[in-house]
Amino acid sequence: MNLPSKLIEDTVKEFSKLPGIGKKTALRLALHLLKQDVKAVEAFGNTVVKMRTDVRFCKSCNNVADQELCSICASAARNKQVVCVVEGMRDVIAIENTNQYTGVYHVLGGVISPLDGIGPDNLHIEGLVDKVKSGAVQELIMALNPTMEGDTTIFYISKQLQGTKVKITSIARGVAFGGELEYVDELTLARSIATRMPYENYLMNR
Amino acid sequence: MNLPSKLIEDTVKEFSKLPGIGKKTALRLALHLLKQDVKAVEAFGNTVVKMRTDVRFCKSCNNVADQELCSICASAARNKQVVCVVEGMRDVIAIENTNQYTGVYHVLGGVISPLDGIGPDNLHIEGLVDKVKSGAVQELIMALNPTMEGDTTIFYISKQLQGTKVKITSIARGVAFGGELEYVDELTLARSIATRMPYENYLMNR
Repeated sequence: MNLPSKLIEDTVKEFSKLPGIGKKTALRLALHLLKQDVKAVEAFGNTVVKMRTDVRFCKSCNNVADQELCSICASAARNKQVVCVVEGMRDVIAIENTNQYTGVYHVLGGVISPLDGIGPDNLHIEGLVDKVKSGAVQELIMALNPTMEGDTTIFYISKQLQGTKVKITSIARGVAFGGELEYVDELTLARSIATRMPYENYLMNR
Repeated sequence: MNLPSKLIEDTVKEFSKLPGIGKKTALRLALHLLKQDVKAVEAFGNTVVKMRTDVRFCKSCNNVADQELCSICASAARNKQVVCVVEGMRDVIAIENTNQYTGVYHVLGGVISPLDGIGPDNLHIEGLVDKVKSGAVQELIMALNPTMEGDTTIFYISKQLQGTKVKITSIARGVAFGGELEYVDELTLARSIATRMPYENYLMNR
């Protein structure tokens, strides 16, 4: 692309680094910002930089936070005895959006993946183990993705917690409520029959 | 969306203001930047702000520029006697990407559109008229979009230039080289037959 200005070229390059944004979209965004007030563009740039420099991680659950504790851990309304273990902040947002869960979270920051060089020491597992061993937790709900790495991570954590009285559960796997049987993958369908549940439980879920 | 941090929420809001970026994409971009180095994020923010504050407009053609003249007007290789009149910088980029045009441009900054409150005084028409009247221009190629507003603008400019010797042309309209006849709109097809050209010209274009 022949751009008439180095300044615009640099901006296009920076935008192109973002996921899902190609050169054409980057140019569209740059030209859009070029038409805005200087103040608006400064607000945009400063907000992004401020987020990155000022963000903190919750001392208790490792979720992103504005203060020492994240808003969920700091809330008196949340049940601290139930901890949902997730891979990242996105999962927290997804579960929070259901408006159903009243416990707290523990963000691992990833899953054990030897191929990518990520071992248990690279994740926030120690804090979780300490929390459980201190006796403050009754139940751990494992909400990791059902991949080999996710399963390995659950296995590792459960090994670390052997001897404690904590109850380890996993979120239910099965056919989604909006799912049509003929399009569901074989593994899910087979497992959903093997782990079928009483009709009363099903009604409860509706 | 329930976001755990005000900082992230602000960033998502800023990204959502950009065209074609919704809340979900904005969150994805914010989380991506959160994982980058502080330096990389600062480079991103500063580049965008710098573009907006430092950008200049070419004294001659009103295109964006880094110096007093844009790189096209400053180039000795370009024929200053042929001026292509376009609506905006995007059109310049599109024509430049063909690597065929050797003249210069004049960026109007829009087209006359009374409904949007844009009159001739809001556009950079005066500079163009002065340039032509000074005798420096032999040909004006009108490359405005074929809308009512574009046609009005061409008509206005040609009126202003009555009495000068400048040759006013328009880019060719017709069926695109990749176009299939059955999908072309009726107006284009009808006009392409009415303004048919000698077969030799057609060969020249290949």
